[in-house]
Amino acid sequence: MEKTAAEIASFLNGRVSGNGGVVIANVCGIDEADEGDLTFVANPKYLKKLKTTKASAILVSADIAAPGKNLIIVEDPYTALGKVLGLFYPEEKDFPGIHRQAFVEEGAVISEKAAIHPGAFIGRDAKIADGVIIYPGVFIGRDVSIGEDAVIYPNVSIYRKCIIGKRVILHAGVVVGSDGFGFTRPAVENFKIPQVGIVQIDDDVEIGANCTIDRATMGKTWIQRNVKIDNLVQIAHNVVIGENSVIAAQSGISGSAKLGRSVILGGQVGLVGHIQIGDNVMAAAQSGIHKDVPANQIVSGSPHMPHRKWLAAEACLPKLPEMRNTIATLTRRLEELEEKLLGKIQR
Amino acid sequence: MEKTAAEIASFLNGRVSGNGGVVIANVCGIDEADEGDLTFVANPKYLKKLKTTKASAILVSADIAAPGKNLIIVEDPYTALGKVLGLFYPEEKDFPGIHRQAFVEEGAVISEKAAIHPGAFIGRDAKIADGVIIYPGVFIGRDVSIGEDAVIYPNVSIYRKCIIGKRVILHAGVVVGSDGFGFTRPAVENFKIPQVGIVQIDDDVEIGANCTIDRATMGKTWIQRNVKIDNLVQIAHNVVIGENSVIAAQSGISGSAKLGRSVILGGQVGLVGHIQIGDNVMAAAQSGIHKDVPANQIVSGSPHMPHRKWLAAEACLPKLPEMRNTIATLTRRLEELEEKLLGKIQR
Amino acid sequence: MEKTAAEIASFLNGRVSGNGGVVIANVCGIDEADEGDLTFVANPKYLKKLKTTKASAILVSADIAAPGKNLIIVEDPYTALGKVLGLFYPEEKDFPGIHRQAFVEEGAVISEKAAIHPGAFIGRDAKIADGVIIYPGVFIGRDVSIGEDAVIYPNVSIYRKCIIGKRVILHAGVVVGSDGFGFTRPAVENFKIPQVGIVQIDDDVEIGANCTIDRATMGKTWIQRNVKIDNLVQIAHNVVIGENSVIAAQSGISGSAKLGRSVILGGQVGLVGHIQIGDNVMAAAQSGIHKDVPANQIVSGSPHMPHRKWLAAEACLPKLPEMRNTIATLTRRLEELEEKLLGKIQR
Repeated sequence: MEKTAAEIASFLNGRVSGNGGVVIANVCGIDEADEGDLTFVANPKYLKKLKTTKASAILVSADIAAPGKNLIIVEDPYTALGKVLGLFYPEEKDFPGIHRQAFVEEGAVISEKAAIHPGAFIGRDAKIADGVIIYPGVFIGRDVSIGEDAVIYPNVSIYRKCIIGKRVILHAGVVVGSDGFGFTRPAVENFKIPQVGIVQIDDDVEIGANCTIDRATMGKTWIQRNVKIDNLVQIAHNVVIGENSVIAAQSGISGSAKLGRSVILGGQVGLVGHIQIGDNVMAAAQSGIHKDVPANQIVSGSPHMPHRKWLAAEACLPKLPEMRNTIATLTRRLEELEEKLLGKIQR
Repeated sequence: MEKTAAEIASFLNGRVSGNGGVVIANVCGIDEADEGDLTFVANPKYLKKLKTTKASAILVSADIAAPGKNLIIVEDPYTALGKVLGLFYPEEKDFPGIHRQAFVEEGAVISEKAAIHPGAFIGRDAKIADGVIIYPGVFIGRDVSIGEDAVIYPNVSIYRKCIIGKRVILHAGVVVGSDGFGFTRPAVENFKIPQVGIVQIDDDVEIGANCTIDRATMGKTWIQRNVKIDNLVQIAHNVVIGENSVIAAQSGISGSAKLGRSVILGGQVGLVGHIQIGDNVMAAAQSGIHKDVPANQIVSGSPHMPHRKWLAAEACLPKLPEMRNTIATLTRRLEELEEKLLGKIQR
Repeated sequence: MEKTAAEIASFLNGRVSGNGGVVIANVCGIDEADEGDLTFVANPKYLKKLKTTKASAILVSADIAAPGKNLIIVEDPYTALGKVLGLFYPEEKDFPGIHRQAFVEEGAVISEKAAIHPGAFIGRDAKIADGVIIYPGVFIGRDVSIGEDAVIYPNVSIYRKCIIGKRVILHAGVVVGSDGFGFTRPAVENFKIPQVGIVQIDDDVEIGANCTIDRATMGKTWIQRNVKIDNLVQIAHNVVIGENSVIAAQSGISGSAKLGRSVILGGQVGLVGHIQIGDNVMAAAQSGIHKDVPANQIVSGSPHMPHRKWLAAEACLPKLPEMRNTIATLTRRLEELEEKLLGKIQR
């Protein structure tokens, strides 16, 4: 595909500063970009590369100047990049149909507009809507339903009765609906509590590779609309994640924790069970959250505390040995002073 | 299924306080429960909901009172819940047989009472006992043996020669018997040590989705009887986990560590290699365990320390900036005192 | 296989101290070794077991003495062990060929010297070189290329266009080329940035079970030659890992981070995005790395600091309550002193 800078600017509702006639054939990172390429600057860290890039045009925001460069000025360069990538590299659409080497149990209801690849398994009474793509090696359990235009990548396993919304993307290796971790008299008897609930994943959710989302003991584990989850995240039974929330890789959320809307968890965060996290809470990477967090807070640390408090506390950690020495010195000097002076004065 | 409260109490060896004739058709969480539902209270956090629940009956322990409610009084409400769930929602048993679209190598020995689903692979000389269920996409390597009534969920991979006990449950995506991480001259040459041992998983073990359990360099990695492991846990080569132990999600145990019986690890715990953890040790979530822990200890923190010590230490963390300021102030005041007084008195 | 100690010593360019004629039939850990077995001591922790082992011969370095034992003295006993294991337990080579129950799309180019197992999927225009082994349940996307003698274990998923080098080993459940985690206006809109780059894995890389390696937004995520990665590791989009680096289990590397050569990360380490880690850096287990680390540093802690500084700091943690008490006591004593003495002297 080839487009001029002016055409791209028009597509993005932006404007060109420089030569709008320059022809763009590819979109690239700023280090790799060459003649004929469009690139972008969204992170200020990369601003200094503006001067040296060989790109034919650069997506930037209005506050950026770069004399002699062809700039496409847009409100949000990262969003604009997303749109341009979608324009230049449209997703290949699979032909619909059930491959003859797919494994389909009797009673599965599959739209003729869905694509079922070889080696995928669709269980009895599962419902697969229009436009769904099911890759090889996927297991769709009995009574599962998959909403329109969902994409289920290879080797995903979805246990019985779970509900997957429209346009949901499950990356390879995701497990949905495995048994919650519930045992009584733990480490003594380990008597298993049957896990008879389900997982419900609402529309527009995307879940990263090899995540695990356990079914509820009773009721449902619930990932609400437009939640985005990175790779290798663990969601335990009966967890609720509010809409638009974003969870980075390798975080883990224990049983029955409830997250509000628009919560952001950094990577490798851990939450204990049965807590409430308010709307818009942000937790820094590697936080350990052990109790409720009210809405709109930013927290860090393990155990977590308000982020500003944590910044102040963690700045002291490397000073601890010095602090300890100073305390010892002060103690000695105070003792000397007490001995000498109290002796002299009080006697 | 419908049962009266009295019938359920009898099944549980409990007793009814209230109307034993009320009919129960479902089992639900306390928030969702409505007329015709049984619910339970095991965690004191939910006691306050006793008054407002619409459930027709509630499983509780003997110390709970709720005037006007129908209570089924049992020794341990959570265990009772497990039994009732098993009663109301019995597991569907698969018909036995080898599906014609399963991939079975010559020389595999499969009981006629086992169920092998389409798309499962059974390698040469593998032995599959009575009552085993093998879901689609499972890989059973050569010479693997699977004990009676084990359930192997979709897309599990079991490498050659590993031994799986009776009634073991492996959730979707589990990997058993991948090579241990052994290289000499690390980061210089990375010469691979062949991993020629196996994994042995004893009876009644349950392993969560997407866990990884590496085979031993020589000998065996060994998960003993009735151990329960949550999702995304890493077990390295030559680890031994003693019977009845319970390991929460995303924990990782490094090579040749030996855990005693009835050890409990919280989520995201890490253990270094070649250490011994005594019987009944408990480690709090996100602990980092860097050396042996004697039996019966509770530990927390990274690096770990006795739990009480950690509680005291972590309570000081938010106070660090204040402590540091106080030390600076004390130093200044002491200097002033020394200067003024020593000057006056000693001269 | 049977070999004398002298034959083994000769194979290893080592020498025998004791009886070179003793016959070895197996290689075992020092605890399990019995007559006819060879064992080894590489970790000083196990030196004390030299006296009591029943092994017929022991691989040791030149500085070890064990009167009455048959020693095979080599430069590096662990490397020697690796070589002997390769000798005694050679890997079984699969017959080449495409199994009739493999799923191969038209246009895939597969060497006749590759082994494609039943239930594996090879996409259109994928290229599979000589000697490659592809296990059941593997998904090879379209336009993927796999280099000579690579081994792709069961249920691995490789998305379109990714490039896998020679002799690469991908353990079961690995995901290569899933979409990077890129959304604009996170937690508000979560607009998805198409991920149109690839993953390139160079020769001799080994990647542990259930790891996830995301494709680049644009360009490539790049794992360089001879890197070794343990299980359940997360590599985000556009990360570069320099050759010979070693990454332990459950570590996570955020987007666009660049690691130099011969970097070593312990288990459960986390790195934020867009940082540079110099050559030969070592990070202790559970470190949290939040900014650039210059070459040749050893770091620990979360947030990380130089390892020696961390050792000194963490040794103070259990002393914090005592330090806090001492500060309170000093403050009280200083106040008393100030009051008494300043009162007496200055008035």
